[in-house]
Amino acid sequence: MIVTVKQNAREEEIQSLILWLESFGLQVRTWIGEKYTLIGLIGDTSSLDGRLIESMPVVEKITRIQEPYKNATRRLHPEDTVVDVSGVKIGGGHFAMIAGPCSVESREQIIDIAKQVKASGATILRGGAFKPRSSPYSFQGMGADGIELLLEAKKETGLPIVSEIMDISQLPLFEDVDMLQIGARNMQNFTLLKEVGKLDKPVLLKRGLSATYEEWLMAAEYIMSEGNHQVVLCERGIRTFETKTRNTLDITAIPMMHELTHLPVIIDPSHAAGMSRMVHPLSLAATGAGADGLIIEVHNNPAKALCDGPQALTPDAFDEVTRDVTALRNALRR
Amino acid sequence: MIVTVKQNAREEEIQSLILWLESFGLQVRTWIGEKYTLIGLIGDTSSLDGRLIESMPVVEKITRIQEPYKNATRRLHPEDTVVDVSGVKIGGGHFAMIAGPCSVESREQIIDIAKQVKASGATILRGGAFKPRSSPYSFQGMGADGIELLLEAKKETGLPIVSEIMDISQLPLFEDVDMLQIGARNMQNFTLLKEVGKLDKPVLLKRGLSATYEEWLMAAEYIMSEGNHQVVLCERGIRTFETKTRNTLDITAIPMMHELTHLPVIIDPSHAAGMSRMVHPLSLAATGAGADGLIIEVHNNPAKALCDGPQALTPDAFDEVTRDVTALRNALRR
Amino acid sequence: MIVTVKQNAREEEIQSLILWLESFGLQVRTWIGEKYTLIGLIGDTSSLDGRLIESMPVVEKITRIQEPYKNATRRLHPEDTVVDVSGVKIGGGHFAMIAGPCSVESREQIIDIAKQVKASGATILRGGAFKPRSSPYSFQGMGADGIELLLEAKKETGLPIVSEIMDISQLPLFEDVDMLQIGARNMQNFTLLKEVGKLDKPVLLKRGLSATYEEWLMAAEYIMSEGNHQVVLCERGIRTFETKTRNTLDITAIPMMHELTHLPVIIDPSHAAGMSRMVHPLSLAATGAGADGLIIEVHNNPAKALCDGPQALTPDAFDEVTRDVTALRNALRR
Amino acid sequence: MIVTVKQNAREEEIQSLILWLESFGLQVRTWIGEKYTLIGLIGDTSSLDGRLIESMPVVEKITRIQEPYKNATRRLHPEDTVVDVSGVKIGGGHFAMIAGPCSVESREQIIDIAKQVKASGATILRGGAFKPRSSPYSFQGMGADGIELLLEAKKETGLPIVSEIMDISQLPLFEDVDMLQIGARNMQNFTLLKEVGKLDKPVLLKRGLSATYEEWLMAAEYIMSEGNHQVVLCERGIRTFETKTRNTLDITAIPMMHELTHLPVIIDPSHAAGMSRMVHPLSLAATGAGADGLIIEVHNNPAKALCDGPQALTPDAFDEVTRDVTALRNALRR
Repeated sequence: MIVTVKQNAREEEIQSLILWLESFGLQVRTWIGEKYTLIGLIGDTSSLDGRLIESMPVVEKITRIQEPYKNATRRLHPEDTVVDVSGVKIGGGHFAMIAGPCSVESREQIIDIAKQVKASGATILRGGAFKPRSSPYSFQGMGADGIELLLEAKKETGLPIVSEIMDISQLPLFEDVDMLQIGARNMQNFTLLKEVGKLDKPVLLKRGLSATYEEWLMAAEYIMSEGNHQVVLCERGIRTFETKTRNTLDITAIPMMHELTHLPVIIDPSHAAGMSRMVHPLSLAATGAGADGLIIEVHNNPAKALCDGPQALTPDAFDEVTRDVTALRNALRR
Repeated sequence: MIVTVKQNAREEEIQSLILWLESFGLQVRTWIGEKYTLIGLIGDTSSLDGRLIESMPVVEKITRIQEPYKNATRRLHPEDTVVDVSGVKIGGGHFAMIAGPCSVESREQIIDIAKQVKASGATILRGGAFKPRSSPYSFQGMGADGIELLLEAKKETGLPIVSEIMDISQLPLFEDVDMLQIGARNMQNFTLLKEVGKLDKPVLLKRGLSATYEEWLMAAEYIMSEGNHQVVLCERGIRTFETKTRNTLDITAIPMMHELTHLPVIIDPSHAAGMSRMVHPLSLAATGAGADGLIIEVHNNPAKALCDGPQALTPDAFDEVTRDVTALRNALRR
Repeated sequence: MIVTVKQNAREEEIQSLILWLESFGLQVRTWIGEKYTLIGLIGDTSSLDGRLIESMPVVEKITRIQEPYKNATRRLHPEDTVVDVSGVKIGGGHFAMIAGPCSVESREQIIDIAKQVKASGATILRGGAFKPRSSPYSFQGMGADGIELLLEAKKETGLPIVSEIMDISQLPLFEDVDMLQIGARNMQNFTLLKEVGKLDKPVLLKRGLSATYEEWLMAAEYIMSEGNHQVVLCERGIRTFETKTRNTLDITAIPMMHELTHLPVIIDPSHAAGMSRMVHPLSLAATGAGADGLIIEVHNNPAKALCDGPQALTPDAFDEVTRDVTALRNALRR
Repeated sequence: MIVTVKQNAREEEIQSLILWLESFGLQVRTWIGEKYTLIGLIGDTSSLDGRLIESMPVVEKITRIQEPYKNATRRLHPEDTVVDVSGVKIGGGHFAMIAGPCSVESREQIIDIAKQVKASGATILRGGAFKPRSSPYSFQGMGADGIELLLEAKKETGLPIVSEIMDISQLPLFEDVDMLQIGARNMQNFTLLKEVGKLDKPVLLKRGLSATYEEWLMAAEYIMSEGNHQVVLCERGIRTFETKTRNTLDITAIPMMHELTHLPVIIDPSHAAGMSRMVHPLSLAATGAGADGLIIEVHNNPAKALCDGPQALTPDAFDEVTRDVTALRNALRR
């Protein structure tokens, strides 16, 4: 971290600032220019509150050089992380196709869909048991029963399952779930992040609706700092001024996150636009941009889906998506 | 809710849509125009998923007429709600001045500050024991010990206390805390909202960083739908493109929320800008716009504060704010 | 347009509203429900100010049914528009590859680049003569001389040229330029839009930094309403909270605009991210999503470019992009 | 400007970077730390393109120390600028009350309103002759005739007038207009900014819908760099995710801009919310926050206004606003 001292700072003010900075256990190096004095801080500055330093009357501004996410940064971990979901790999060239309904609704529904998406090439089954809904009066998911049905579908098809956990009190129910999903609204539920960080289980971390790349990586860092490094990042659309789509897919997140971190990055085209007819073009866009996988909502009867029906594909439409995604990957030799 | 049917819809498609809509238990009225057919839904539509209806192939668009927040809406509850925090009233003409440090740091610190802000006119003491920090490496608060010290400061000064709860597992520790704060990042932690909704204790609900008025009211509705109607809304700055301030205070939230809801609305000028020197002008702005109170960070040594020092006022600066706020309220006969 | 009347409106108020609405020359149809009265307006409502109607005391809300952009809407013009730029077609299956430097800097530079991008498959040459720069102290372009050099490059290579016009006073200089570009900052410069609308020359209309789809289409409508229907829309990144990239490419604009309008939609991956190393993945994403073309900055010496060097590709890197874009289009049989 | 060199840069790369930086005519000072090498650039860096330097392979990042707006910055010009509009002062303690209709509609209308707002204490008359409308089918203003009527109203009442100019071709018509308004959509119409910069006439510069403080100041700098320093900044609401209000008033712009610049800052509460009933609370908020004035839409018949009727106050409501604004200013001894 570089601290720029104000032009009119007096010598004793600078000395007192240096002493104060040294009190954080960091080495301090000073560079006196004609107009400005710069102070370099050497050591681990990730726990330092930059805004506090900036509030000192003699400080002009500070510049961070190291990223505050030391586990997630690619700079210190250049190799791609490959996450293993009960045998299915994601990242480092392994492309994941995750599919299934927004909500588990019945035994028949989930097993039926699981079989169909598997036949089309899906490698992991998704399905919501606990649903974060903006209205308390909307269907909130089947809860524990939904998890049971997902496990049955897993048994029936062999597909590993991923489902969203909303609160640490639900942890015991997820023991046999292969991958935990942290939803966009919980991306900064730090209590939850820390607890899943203590598990030995892959985590699918969705990006918050208006989170920056750094905030998203800091959320991953919360999980990783507790020991769990099996984190897959999922871009699912950010909030913008556009109201004709539910959210706006940030396609640049794929190459940018690949630069900033070694963790895999997948895309959720279903939530991003909130419209089933956008899933095909957005899936091809994501694949073209280098995503490590897709997570797509598929329902055998979208018009009757208890949640997010408008964005679900039919199994047939999903089949078309997987075919074109494969053609595109082959053409680009991926 | 009004459903507009597409121009080219065939008669049997319209009939089938009507049957489907009736299956939700609503009365349906039809109006056939020259180009468009409109279908009106009569009854409680708050649990209806508008997007699902909109996804039907024959539907052009839907228009909501009722707000989905039936407990929070002023339309059905025209009288101002007055929230009582252990004897201190907020709303309906009662102005709350809440002050204290970002984090509780020590017995001396919190009692010292509590006494000083009380002398300046504060009516409720704030102080963080559990701190949501964007980095896992930053100070996370004193936890249970912090709550203990707040209770001591309450005993010493008589000021009711408000503190942030981050997870339902912390509920037992907050038994004697007078008011629970739900932070901006937890505004859509629905599990937490529902649990505090079961208590008989006032809740301070901060607005999420990029939440709309409706989402904020739906979060209040989550609490109210469980029975707890003692909710105070707190605007604390929204995220915008401006990077010179931490967030951007949405001053219009005050008159707009007063129109939409009967719940009191207070302002947090400290977090909004993230700069102590903005607190004075923003406090006067909020008072001018009709806020029901302010929540201000005060620290006896901002430069040593363990969190958010840059935005804390000294007790003297806080005293100036309270004096000018009072002068302004008198001038406007509030 | 549907006007919903307030629940408590009195009969005479409704009658007076109807008379007032009829004064706009529209037919009015009324539907009286149990709780609400709806008024339908029949006729061309595109010149009606919805907000004015909404401000009437007895009006609850209004709902637009027709789009306000009657020339640009696909609903009334289902066939794809194919824009012809001096023989090069864009739209309706014709893919345009536009390339060249941000600014024209010298005769040698522009001719050299023109030849190289043509060899790689570019079909139109871009180059800035008038540059909108956020600082008055930055290089503002070569002006009229730049246009001259572009015309020389056109003569030399046969490539049609596109260049940005910033003000109607520059119109005479653009007489021989094949396609006029309206920049993002001028998307709502209505005087300029109307003037280019009177020409018989294709226009490349960039989307404003925070413009919605509807505002962008209304800008196209300004041009089209004057008679010029040769408009190509260009998405070049929108402003979001992310600061690691210059802007955020809205990839969904491609399929959504294809739904809303019959005009071609191309993508500018260079400005979108502001980083040359993002151009390759974003170009593939855009192609996957169905763009009608790309406009890419290419410079023979990016480090010496007088403007926007960081985002320019070298001719070799551009060659790689065109090869992969072609492979991808072939794989998807486009 | 400080350039941080990458950790792994080789000595010859650093030397070549230094030579390149010196070629811009700047003095270069180097500081070699343990891990990083810093290069300080001394001299006027306002014409330097920071992103170009940042794109050099050996550069880690750059940090600007000087603001790029050297005429507008308060750092170099600590005294408040007082703008004189034909005798009416704005800034440095002088509070301006600007009022009038959105559009000039007729002789009677503008003179009637002018008299009424003058009686209530307005010091400058506003009125639009050229109206930037998002639809080409909406009323576009009376044009030259509107300017004539404004001049008549000025003669009748003695109030100086301010009106919006949309294009440099309109300049001759504005010769007798006391103050030129640049609208939000034209904030980065650089051709227009430069031309009004050559005049000896005050300019009211509205902030763009999603402009940052720095972009807004750079727009002022465009005007000032040509010699015209009589610039008044006007905050009129920024675009946010909220759709219940037209825009969101950024109240913090007042104290922040007062810190960054010596130019006066006024507020437009009418456009900010787009609702007449928000004008009173927002006017008091702006006054509390220290604005140098207000610009308010007043119409003698808002329901018949040809543009923006929903946000206009009646003359009586305006009278109430001026009374409360005065009371508030007195209470705060301003």
